[in-house]
Parts: sequence; C-alpha cells; structure tokens
Amino acid sequence: MASVRTCTTLSSKISNNLAWKKSIRVYRKHGVRHMSAASASGTFKASDLQIDFCPPENLKMKPAVKDLVFGRSFTDHMLKILYTDQSGWGQPRITPLQDLRLHPAAKVLHYSVELFEGMKAFRGVDDEIRLFRPNKNMERMNRTAARCSLPTFDGDELIALLKKMISVDQEWVPHTESSSLYIRPTLIGIEPTLGVQRPVEALLFVILSPVGPYFSSGFKPVSLLADPQYVRAWPGGMGMMKSGSNYGPTLEIQRYAEAKGLHQVLWLFGPEHRITEVGAMNIFIFLDKGNGEKELVTPPLDGLILPGVTRDSLLTLAREWGEFQVSERDITMTELVQASHDKKLLEMFGAGTAAVVTPVGSIHYQDQVINIPTMDHDQPLNQRFYNTITGIQYGRIASPWAMSIQ
Amino acid sequence: MASVRTCTTLSSKISNNLAWKKSIRVYRKHGVRHMSAASASGTFKASDLQIDFCPPENLKMKPAVKDLVFGRSFTDHMLKILYTDQSGWGQPRITPLQDLRLHPAAKVLHYSVELFEGMKAFRGVDDEIRLFRPNKNMERMNRTAARCSLPTFDGDELIALLKKMISVDQEWVPHTESSSLYIRPTLIGIEPTLGVQRPVEALLFVILSPVGPYFSSGFKPVSLLADPQYVRAWPGGMGMMKSGSNYGPTLEIQRYAEAKGLHQVLWLFGPEHRITEVGAMNIFIFLDKGNGEKELVTPPLDGLILPGVTRDSLLTLAREWGEFQVSERDITMTELVQASHDKKLLEMFGAGTAAVVTPVGSIHYQDQVINIPTMDHDQPLNQRFYNTITGIQYGRIASPWAMSIQ
Repeated sequence: MASVRTCTTLSSKISNNLAWKKSIRVYRKHGVRHMSAASASGTFKASDLQIDFCPPENLKMKPAVKDLVFGRSFTDHMLKILYTDQSGWGQPRITPLQDLRLHPAAKVLHYSVELFEGMKAFRGVDDEIRLFRPNKNMERMNRTAARCSLPTFDGDELIALLKKMISVDQEWVPHTESSSLYIRPTLIGIEPTLGVQRPVEALLFVILSPVGPYFSSGFKPVSLLADPQYVRAWPGGMGMMKSGSNYGPTLEIQRYAEAKGLHQVLWLFGPEHRITEVGAMNIFIFLDKGNGEKELVTPPLDGLILPGVTRDSLLTLAREWGEFQVSERDITMTELVQASHDKKLLEMFGAGTAAVVTPVGSIHYQDQVINIPTMDHDQPLNQRFYNTITGIQYGRIASPWAMSIQ
Repeated sequence: MASVRTCTTLSSKISNNLAWKKSIRVYRKHGVRHMSAASASGTFKASDLQIDFCPPENLKMKPAVKDLVFGRSFTDHMLKILYTDQSGWGQPRITPLQDLRLHPAAKVLHYSVELFEGMKAFRGVDDEIRLFRPNKNMERMNRTAARCSLPTFDGDELIALLKKMISVDQEWVPHTESSSLYIRPTLIGIEPTLGVQRPVEALLFVILSPVGPYFSSGFKPVSLLADPQYVRAWPGGMGMMKSGSNYGPTLEIQRYAEAKGLHQVLWLFGPEHRITEVGAMNIFIFLDKGNGEKELVTPPLDGLILPGVTRDSLLTLAREWGEFQVSERDITMTELVQASHDKKLLEMFGAGTAAVVTPVGSIHYQDQVINIPTMDHDQPLNQRFYNTITGIQYGRIASPWAMSIQ
C-alpha cells in the first residue's frame, strides 16, 4: 500500500519542491493566472482565481498516514473570498495557509455568525482524485448561509475553485484507501460591530486537512450515551443547518459521555425520547420485521435532523437495491428497547462524511445498557454500505456521484 | 451637559496625548508594572498585568456623542489573557487594540466555541467612573464557560483587570449621562483542530466601546414581531447561557421583523405561546389586577431565559418598593391578549444592559396588533426603573450596586 511519504527534512524538502513545480505546471496547463494583478471586480468566479503559491522553502512536511489525527494537520494553501454588501463577492485567492486577521469585534467571535461544510477528496485506485457529490454540500452550504444571514454564492464556482485548490495541494491527498483529504469550506461574518444584526462583511475560506479514519479505534463499534435531558435541536430552531451554533453546545455533553467511558452522544427529543442524531452523524437502524422482512430506519428530515450527504447516499443505495423496506420515520427509544428485547434489532450505525459509516455497539440509556449486534452478522449491512460508498469514492465502482478534479 | 470632545485632528491629538500621559500617571500611582518583563507564570492575576501602551501618535479620535452607534467604535486598548490546558491561564496583557491572529482551523470559527458578557462603565455626575454589579456578570460568564467547555477563571481578578483597563482608556468614558462605555469580555476557543471536542487553548479578551442609547430611536416604544414558528431556546438546550450560539440563529429572524417594519422579535415558546424574551433582552409586563392591585410579571428562570443583571435589578427594586405584586411566572400570549382586551395591560418593556429599559408599544401577533399604552401613563413604571437604575449608575443615587473603578 502506498502512503503519504514519511518525513525526513531532506526528502520532504525535495518532494515538496517537486510538488510545487508540478503544481505550477498544472496551473499553467489549466490556464489559471499565477499572481495576476488583482482584477478590480472579482465575482466569486473560478476564472478570476489568483494564486499566491507558498514558497518552496516554506512547504510543510507531510505527516505519515499512521500519524494522521482528524483535522490536526493542514496543507500548504488555503482559499479566501471576501464579501461586502457594498462590493459583493470579491476575487477568489489561493494563498499560503496563514492566520486570519480578525478585528476583535468581528461578529463571528461574538454571535456565532459562522457555518461550514465537510467534504473529502479521495485518491482513487487509478490515482485519479475525486470529490463525492460536492453539489450536495454546496446546496446545503447555501441553505445554511441564507438562514444565518450570510451571503449565498454560486456553488458550481466554488466546486471549480475547490478542484483547483486540491490540484495545487494534490500531493497532500493521501496515497491510501484508509485516508483522504478533508475539505473544510467555512463562511464567517467579519464585520467589526457589536450590534446583534446580520453582518455586512463576510469571508468564505477553505482549508484542507489530510485525514485518517475519524475514530482512532478504527471500525470498532462505538458506545453511545442517550440522556434525554440534553437536547441538540428543536422545532423552530435550526438543527437542520450546518452552522457552528449546532456544535458548540454539544461539546460539554460529549465530554460528559467520554467521562462515563462512552464514545458519543445519541441525541433524543421529546417526551417519547425520539432518536434524532448521533454525535455529529445521522443515525440508521436496521430492524428484523419478524415475517422475513427487514426495515432500514432513519429519522425524517423534520427540521431537527442535518440532511447528511452520506445519509442521502445510503437511502438512495438501499432503495436501488430494493431488498428491504427503507423508512424515513420517527423511531423512539421505547421501540428500540423493545426491538432489542425481541432480538429484532440487527444493526445500528452512524453515517457522515468524516467517518462514512460508524457501527454502534451499545447504548447507555437511563439504567439500561442496550447491546446491539451490529457487527456480529455475516456481511453486516453497514459494511456493505461502507464498501459501496468507499468503492465509489476510491474509483473502484463507477458512479455519477464521483467527480474527478481534472 | 458635558460631552465626549468633538474631534478635530489637532485637538484630538492633543487631548489623546494628555490622556495617555494621565493614564501612565494613573498606572504608576497604582503600582501596575508598565511593560514589565513577562512573568514566567502568569495566573490571571491583576497584579501580574503587563501594559503595552498605545503610542500617542496612534491614539484614535473619539467620536462625538451624537455620532455614537452601539458597538461601532472602540477604545485604544484591549485586554488579552491566553489559556492552555498545559499552562493554565497566562499573564494578563493590555495592548493597543489590534486584530486577533487566529489559525483558520480555530474552533471558534467552526463550532461556535465562544461566549461573551455585556457590561458598562459610567461617568458619574461626580466624574467618578463606576461599574454596575460586575460580580453578576462574572458569575454568569463563568457559568457559561463551564457549560461551553471553556476554562473558568477568578471573577474578582477580571473585575480588577477591567478597572485597570478602564483607567487606561478613561477618557473614552463619555462625559454625559446619555452615554457610557460598553465593556465586552469575550472568551473563545482557539485550538486549531477540527475535531468536535472541547478546545485545549482559549483566549479571553476584552474590548471597550463608547456607546450612546442602544436604539437610535431613543426612548420611543418599540414594535415587536411575535411569530411562534421561530424558537430561540428549548428545555435541555442552553438558552440561559450568554454564548454566541444563542445569537447567530436570531439574526435572520430579526431581519425578517425589520422587513415587516418592526423593531424586535418577541420570542414565544410552546403550544401555549409562552412569552420568553424580547430581542436580546428580558421582558417585563405590568398588569392591572382589577381590584386596585397591580402585578409586575417576568418569565421565570426555567432554562429558556437569560438571567439578566438588569432583570435581577428590576425585580430587587420592585420587591424593595413593595408597592405591587412581583411575579416570576409563565405568561402566555392568550393572557396578554385578554389583558389588553380588558384594558388591564398597563406596560411592557425590555430590560438589558445595552438598552437598560426599553418600552414596548405594540406586538404583531398572528393577525392581531396589540397596542400597549406603555408610555401613556403619568410616571410610567418603566421610566421609574430607568431613572433609578441610571441614577445608581451615574452616581446620583448611592447604592452598593455601583462599584467605583478607583
């Protein structure tokens, strides 16, 4: 198996030098302006992209794949696009990765005027680099922006910019199927005023991070804390948006779960303890219906649930397969406990971009521990999903969901 | 009435120079080290404060009081205290106001790991500068920090630091009772990693902003949009915390209200449309009970309500006065509509640090407009509250709630 090159200072400098020259060649070939004079009227267009390459002597060493921890190391470049009410979107710029300079009154630091997306680029078995359904992320990012009083943008242009950006940092896309390049588009309100009002200035930026498996435990089933006293989202709120405000309030509950020796939080809602999400993933439950029928259940998009790209992909695959019932419906802890008691609870797993599919092994709920035989079957459904999704992502399975960056 | 001096470049430079020299004298007198060698083990202590004064030539012009818009201009200095899990709280530093340099992966920019407080310093009729119940803000800030997985701190030390900081920028405290110096302590998670986990690095900073009345309309009653489809907070959430995540989601609803020509949002909760808060203020309702009795109602601290310092102060004053019933209880739109219909709805007003007391003139609720005669009485209760609170703040009324910065 190939790997991101291990780092000695010398070999890294040489390889980074090569990568840098290759990047410039790629860019010249694709006709992108290198350090062009700033165009006076940038408009979020990939064709207006200005690239300020990281000097070769500043290129960073790439960590070994085995040392990758989710979201801890970043590539050499970033993308920035400024917005003001007065001028609209500015010219996209790729620059060396650098600190942002923000006025201490910037709204993002006080009122959580911020949102993000999570995407990945995969180096396929054919060495081609692919994105996975990036248009879904662009749609969600724009929906979230509109709800957060942040400016919307042309998603196709941002996809084109992401492709160019990944080309520049292409040597950072790991040479192994266990890893990928995580893409973090972020949109923040930066107007430096303290009124609780929509910002008139915003910054869209993208950073890239080579990542291994999200959970260092690998594909081992995780344990969940299901405590109905903590609520992630509610009707009339914005739990369906990928905004920062949905994440900050969860950190302490996650810490509380970890203090109990558990991996993640299963978020419940309402007096009937409806199951909504797990950690920062959507949740799937595979049930034996008793009459030879099986049912895959995930909670419906009722405003409490993040409309995950992986969620949508699993539902679409399951419906194409047509082998079992596929339901977007409410499911409560009472039903889950009963199904477990009746040995009808076959599998439970989280679905999300960071971890793809994460099997659940147990739920700690009130005074009970519900053990779930998620991985104890021949050919578990979650593994089949995982293999199919990653097969598409790494170019082993042809699919319109995979988009080459070329 | 004295005013913040109007600005011509020359007079401002001179006065700023004087202010700077005065600040240094104040600091020498109070024994604070000026640009001391960094103490190796800072511990959030005011006695460890290091001050890096803004050079006289960089001091800014002070805007005229009439031009003050809430939270738009800032003083010459800021306070910063860094925290890391490894070293704990570092040495407090006052520096010239400057941009923060944040890694683009800083958790505050992605997961709303952020909280703040709102306080004010007032220049009294005796020229003494006072804070108003700052210990209440410190208690709330620490409660919020604990809930947000951010580090807690010694509130008394931060008060001592605020006093020193305000002394440095004392010429920015307006010389008029219509204005004050708004104080914005802020605490953000700055660890540059993308895992959804508590940050191991944080930054507490404070900025100061001379402010006029919060609403440019002055003491005119505001109109409210009460639309039950938008929900600010939920049981099991953290509506009682002063975290950024409670504000971002409200901006678009505030914009929606403004598009309807209304000033603020009245946040309702539950099928019975319970009244919870207004904009970013607590809400008070003054009712005629019909038998010569009157009742002041504010919603209880049930987890949905921010425990406002002004809220607590009005309740305490009202109970001291003992002239009418004071209730922390649920109140629904049904009760409000009925009271209005029966001519029992005397006054309604918001209470908060930024605006002190804000009279409400009308509520737009479903298909109704409820007009409230808040300002149509002789000596309205809200004006009496306003006069009492500001009397304490500006040194006209002696009270243990006022704390001199000397």
